[in-house]
Amino acid sequence: MPDPRPTLEAVAAHAGVSRATVSRVVNGGAGVRASVRERVQEAVADLGYVPNRAARSLVTRRTGAVAVVIAEPERRVFSDPFFAQQLRGISRELAVYDTQLLLMLVEHPNDYPRIGRYLSGGHVDGALMFSLHRDDPLPAMAAEAGLPAVYGGRPGWADAERELLYVDTDNRGGARLAVEHLLERGRRRIATITGPLDQTSAVDRLDGYRDALEAADPALGADPALVAHGDFTAEGGERAMAQLLERSPGLDAVFAASDLMATGTLCALRAAGRRVPEDVALVGYDDMPPALWADPPLTTVRQDVQAMGRIMAALLLQCLGVYHEEGARRRTGPVDGRAPTTPVITPARLVVRAST
Amino acid sequence: MPDPRPTLEAVAAHAGVSRATVSRVVNGGAGVRASVRERVQEAVADLGYVPNRAARSLVTRRTGAVAVVIAEPERRVFSDPFFAQQLRGISRELAVYDTQLLLMLVEHPNDYPRIGRYLSGGHVDGALMFSLHRDDPLPAMAAEAGLPAVYGGRPGWADAERELLYVDTDNRGGARLAVEHLLERGRRRIATITGPLDQTSAVDRLDGYRDALEAADPALGADPALVAHGDFTAEGGERAMAQLLERSPGLDAVFAASDLMATGTLCALRAAGRRVPEDVALVGYDDMPPALWADPPLTTVRQDVQAMGRIMAALLLQCLGVYHEEGARRRTGPVDGRAPTTPVITPARLVVRAST
Repeated sequence: MPDPRPTLEAVAAHAGVSRATVSRVVNGGAGVRASVRERVQEAVADLGYVPNRAARSLVTRRTGAVAVVIAEPERRVFSDPFFAQQLRGISRELAVYDTQLLLMLVEHPNDYPRIGRYLSGGHVDGALMFSLHRDDPLPAMAAEAGLPAVYGGRPGWADAERELLYVDTDNRGGARLAVEHLLERGRRRIATITGPLDQTSAVDRLDGYRDALEAADPALGADPALVAHGDFTAEGGERAMAQLLERSPGLDAVFAASDLMATGTLCALRAAGRRVPEDVALVGYDDMPPALWADPPLTTVRQDVQAMGRIMAALLLQCLGVYHEEGARRRTGPVDGRAPTTPVITPARLVVRAST
Repeated sequence: MPDPRPTLEAVAAHAGVSRATVSRVVNGGAGVRASVRERVQEAVADLGYVPNRAARSLVTRRTGAVAVVIAEPERRVFSDPFFAQQLRGISRELAVYDTQLLLMLVEHPNDYPRIGRYLSGGHVDGALMFSLHRDDPLPAMAAEAGLPAVYGGRPGWADAERELLYVDTDNRGGARLAVEHLLERGRRRIATITGPLDQTSAVDRLDGYRDALEAADPALGADPALVAHGDFTAEGGERAMAQLLERSPGLDAVFAASDLMATGTLCALRAAGRRVPEDVALVGYDDMPPALWADPPLTTVRQDVQAMGRIMAALLLQCLGVYHEEGARRRTGPVDGRAPTTPVITPARLVVRAST
């Protein structure tokens, strides 16, 4: 059975103030002196108090739940650790605010109308949506339902960037780092395996690859025989690598736009008798577990996916008016303990291992 | 954007009957001749028609959504393919009935009251719950909310078996098969690594291990030095195997109660310089991907987890009165196209590979 949880009364006693004062502080209300507010916030932190959302929802008509919609089928969500990490960040942030996470996946385009109905049925207070593909109907559905929403990854269509609140990582800059590193290692025939180009993360990483090559030598970036398309899965990476070897047998390096694709790339290189990194240097992207387990371990571009999830949740909670200093104080907040109100781009950095 | 979906009118035209007749058949109503009903059902199947739950919910006050509550943290749900397979079975069955799946995980005991509030808030029509641990509060919450629920795995407490509807696999029989196979291979010092004993699946597999040993030789089953406890994770299996080797260095076989634990067992055996199967024969349980990928590939006990998920969903849909022949006709139904109304135990069978 659940542990007994500290009550508002316990916080009041601990801080030496009235129940009403605690309630005002916890609900973000004004009219409380800074010194008193601090005392209450310390008591909240000491006792691990979580505001009772059930009681609050009587006033606010909130459901206390947030939908997390991943526009991918279960097969992909459960095989790519990216999603688990993003969910971990989201669920930890939501838990601080006693907000329930409801996970919804998209198995088939037929699922969209049903998801739209649920989102507009008053069953959730807001939505976090990620892995959207071009022309994805989810943003329109959220708008129609009047539902606050935050997106994971830059939406790819016109005006969306201005209208939608999103959290992304610097995919273009990260890819540039990867390719610059391969150039520094003396590689000159550098291929890339892209993700699905209906997603901005894949497009941005391809742009970063081209940026780096063109900056080094305008002639380098122009060879379409060095670009193959994958789908962010290991199998897709393996197929794309086989194509590249057929088209450009002289390649000496590959930038695979995800670690999962890079593991497939390794298989294809091994099957072709190419040694990594001696014959072909390989860089992945994500710095997920497959990168470390791979043989050899992969040089890759690290993005803090868990932090991205946490920031997405914090942004949404701020939209919902339930993001309080009280919660932010209890862990390292996304940005100096405050949720941002504009799109956030998190940095990417290179992690060098044995594959380059 | 979603594909256009066939309408009731299209089905009526295809079957050459009125709109009202189609509606009666689709909603399971009586008063339609068998020959006409069959014609309509064929048209439904031909066109891939899915009843419009939104319209129906105006009449039934249903939300068209079902909660799937897994009493495990995200870390375990996303690392053990068992859960993905069960969800796959559930989501496919629910999709046939245009019912939305909402996934909720339990990260911490603190989450229970919040989950209980959501379940009792009128946001879902029913719940599928699995991986319950002893004294889990979820069944009481579902009962209090008046919410129809179906459980994955036999609940472990008094009276629960009579009161709750569940789907399980023959864990005891499956474990017996595993150990009988090791005995047939001439092994006599057979150890076991159990799952967490607050779950009936783990208890039943331990009982099956004892059954087989005692049936072969009453003296064999009695050695507590041959029983170590794991937690259904690879790390837990590795730790347990290290303990077993210290306690019982003369062991010649291990039955690990899950494939994930068996992969950890392999690591520990390799580290100790024991060859599999020459020195120690190993059997896992589940027949999940790790069993095939392992080196050597694992002999294991196969349970059809996806089918279990499908049957759980079918049972719940029947409780909700939305399980129709129409849906069952469109794929191989759980039991002759009909959902059962009592607990279901699915069979287990041995799959022999190189580890024994």
